[in-house]
Amino acid sequence: MNEERWLLPAGIEEVLPPQARIVESLRRELLDLYAGWGYELVIPPFIDYLESLLTGTGQDLDLQTFKLTDQLTGRLLGVRADMTPQVARIDAHHLRRDTPTRLCYLGTVLHTRTDGFAGTRSPLQIGAEIYGHAGIESDAEILRLILLTLRTAGIGESYLDLGHVGIFRGLARQAGLDDAQEHALFDALQRKAVPEIETLIADFGVSGAPAEMLIALAELNGSDALTRAQVVLRAADRPVREALDYLHRLADELSRWLPEVSIHYDLAELRGYRYKTGVVFAAFVPGWGLEIARGGRYDDIGRVFGRARPAVGFSTDLKSLLSHGQGLEQRYQATAPVYAPWSAEPALREAVDRLRESGRCVINALPGLTQDPRQLGCQQRLVERDGRWELETIGNIDNEWEA
Amino acid sequence: MNEERWLLPAGIEEVLPPQARIVESLRRELLDLYAGWGYELVIPPFIDYLESLLTGTGQDLDLQTFKLTDQLTGRLLGVRADMTPQVARIDAHHLRRDTPTRLCYLGTVLHTRTDGFAGTRSPLQIGAEIYGHAGIESDAEILRLILLTLRTAGIGESYLDLGHVGIFRGLARQAGLDDAQEHALFDALQRKAVPEIETLIADFGVSGAPAEMLIALAELNGSDALTRAQVVLRAADRPVREALDYLHRLADELSRWLPEVSIHYDLAELRGYRYKTGVVFAAFVPGWGLEIARGGRYDDIGRVFGRARPAVGFSTDLKSLLSHGQGLEQRYQATAPVYAPWSAEPALREAVDRLRESGRCVINALPGLTQDPRQLGCQQRLVERDGRWELETIGNIDNEWEA
Repeated sequence: MNEERWLLPAGIEEVLPPQARIVESLRRELLDLYAGWGYELVIPPFIDYLESLLTGTGQDLDLQTFKLTDQLTGRLLGVRADMTPQVARIDAHHLRRDTPTRLCYLGTVLHTRTDGFAGTRSPLQIGAEIYGHAGIESDAEILRLILLTLRTAGIGESYLDLGHVGIFRGLARQAGLDDAQEHALFDALQRKAVPEIETLIADFGVSGAPAEMLIALAELNGSDALTRAQVVLRAADRPVREALDYLHRLADELSRWLPEVSIHYDLAELRGYRYKTGVVFAAFVPGWGLEIARGGRYDDIGRVFGRARPAVGFSTDLKSLLSHGQGLEQRYQATAPVYAPWSAEPALREAVDRLRESGRCVINALPGLTQDPRQLGCQQRLVERDGRWELETIGNIDNEWEA
Repeated sequence: MNEERWLLPAGIEEVLPPQARIVESLRRELLDLYAGWGYELVIPPFIDYLESLLTGTGQDLDLQTFKLTDQLTGRLLGVRADMTPQVARIDAHHLRRDTPTRLCYLGTVLHTRTDGFAGTRSPLQIGAEIYGHAGIESDAEILRLILLTLRTAGIGESYLDLGHVGIFRGLARQAGLDDAQEHALFDALQRKAVPEIETLIADFGVSGAPAEMLIALAELNGSDALTRAQVVLRAADRPVREALDYLHRLADELSRWLPEVSIHYDLAELRGYRYKTGVVFAAFVPGWGLEIARGGRYDDIGRVFGRARPAVGFSTDLKSLLSHGQGLEQRYQATAPVYAPWSAEPALREAVDRLRESGRCVINALPGLTQDPRQLGCQQRLVERDGRWELETIGNIDNEWEA
């Protein structure tokens, strides 16, 4: 095994220089962006009691969560696979504010299996949430933040995909489906398997308008889906029509804030269906099949922690953003370091301190090594002239650095 | 269990606002400090193959490491309990540079048990390492960085404790101890259990000068320990005298760079003895029994990854730094946010964008809630006057905000 000790488990990444500096720079810019909008940073724990991690999201995260035994108590712990339930707990239990609360977070989450095509099991999850407001404005604010997040990461082109879990939920109720039937249909719908949907609906004994509407749902996607839904779902019960109306009003609000952004609809796309309660959304980058950011409304998530408040939020993976962003290397390019001799001479120390305070990097020579400072990336060095230390460009005299 | 869903496992912390902002600010200031000295950031993975994590440090970390089974391969994974071996692997295997390499890192590590009195099982480890230079200068640079780290964290008073594993190791060899005997004596020495040490040495059949020197080692601590060691250990073999000489030269170098810092010696203190190869050190804060930062030289750590280079480094826990630092709340105090109405009106959006670009936080009102913006911490709001949006101080007219 010795020669393999450097291998990493599949889907587990390390980030090396200079890429790590870019991760750190983007991290800071995004957290500063959210802070500028009033989102306060929280740092949830990396491990937690399993029942606490799986609360609210139910089975959705169970398979993806690494389990550990707590040697202090014998209880089962989990490594977080999603920070959203942890942040909901912080709002519901620890902060307990009456005012709307905006929170943001960033951290590694781990998954037992690779999720989709991205191939990672250790996304660097970053996200933002608003608690305490139910309405299109908080949805719109979160959607604006998604687009600003993508732009900050150098992703110019993207589109939004909106849906609403109330539409399928209402149609299933109208059709008189029980939980097991609703679940089976939900599964088929996620795969847009129309023949399977038709068979299921017939097996469940659903017919007429409710059957037609459930079958039509699989095709209700695209930028005109909302308009088509007005016709196709005209026989739907009130909750469904309210959900459609909500989407209309949200689209109007978004057209005021984000007139340049393409908005698509997918009324059968139900990410996080088990715990979402309203609008669901995702952002896509052209040419990449997976969503780059996702989110939605989950007004009940805090209930198990003692307090259900309206909630809407989004999250994304910082490493995915980096792999799709343009121009980040240039934007976060560091100035070349300065080389300084190893000496505690006060005037030199002062010159070095001044450079570092101004944001320059100064690398001290380490005696005993004959080293060309250009191999360390240095283009300038500090040299003494008439008792003063000055910056000098390092020339191309290769011999100078030979031992 | 429902009412306990918010409980965290013992020793596992979450960080809430505004403390999380202070953690983030200190994090940035420290990483910027290290970057200014030429330390490049690396981001090691949170989990790794167990054998890879335990390499180099041997058993020291085994008990402290949470184990997981990789569902993809069935192999055993570990959650990192220390990032140092991971950073060594990055230097040895991934970077493979011939030049001295300075790396820094920051991240959560997990321990199965609470370590000492600090009580945490999830330190936020931050540290810096120099690879590729053997000598007092790289030791001195790391010790200077420790003190700058403490000062940056608002810890004014601290002292350094220096030792050298070559002293005990040389004396054990001189006394002819085998590995098991050396290990038993090492254990007793860590507890400074002099009667036990005397019994062990007699049992091992060691007598004369080697016995006297091993017994004397337990008492060789304090600021004059190095001077006393010259007398007490005068009969020691050459490796021991070289180690003492090395410490002398390091102390001389430090007195040039850090004349104001108290330096203590503890020649029996052997943190990380199994993998350390030279000088070992720790920083202490008066009135707190535990070390606040620790480090040393471990020239062999990269060998198992295919490349042994000289290495010296230190690490500390950002959360410990915060709990001992003074004045961080004031230093990282954020300006109070500005309240703005919810409106996509272009002139207002421009005013909001300008404020945010200048570093101010602007919180948008969320329609439908009657809210006193002062409850969100706002002291100013944007109001329209003659078509221009201006900042206005929010008065004390409580009635204004009532529904």
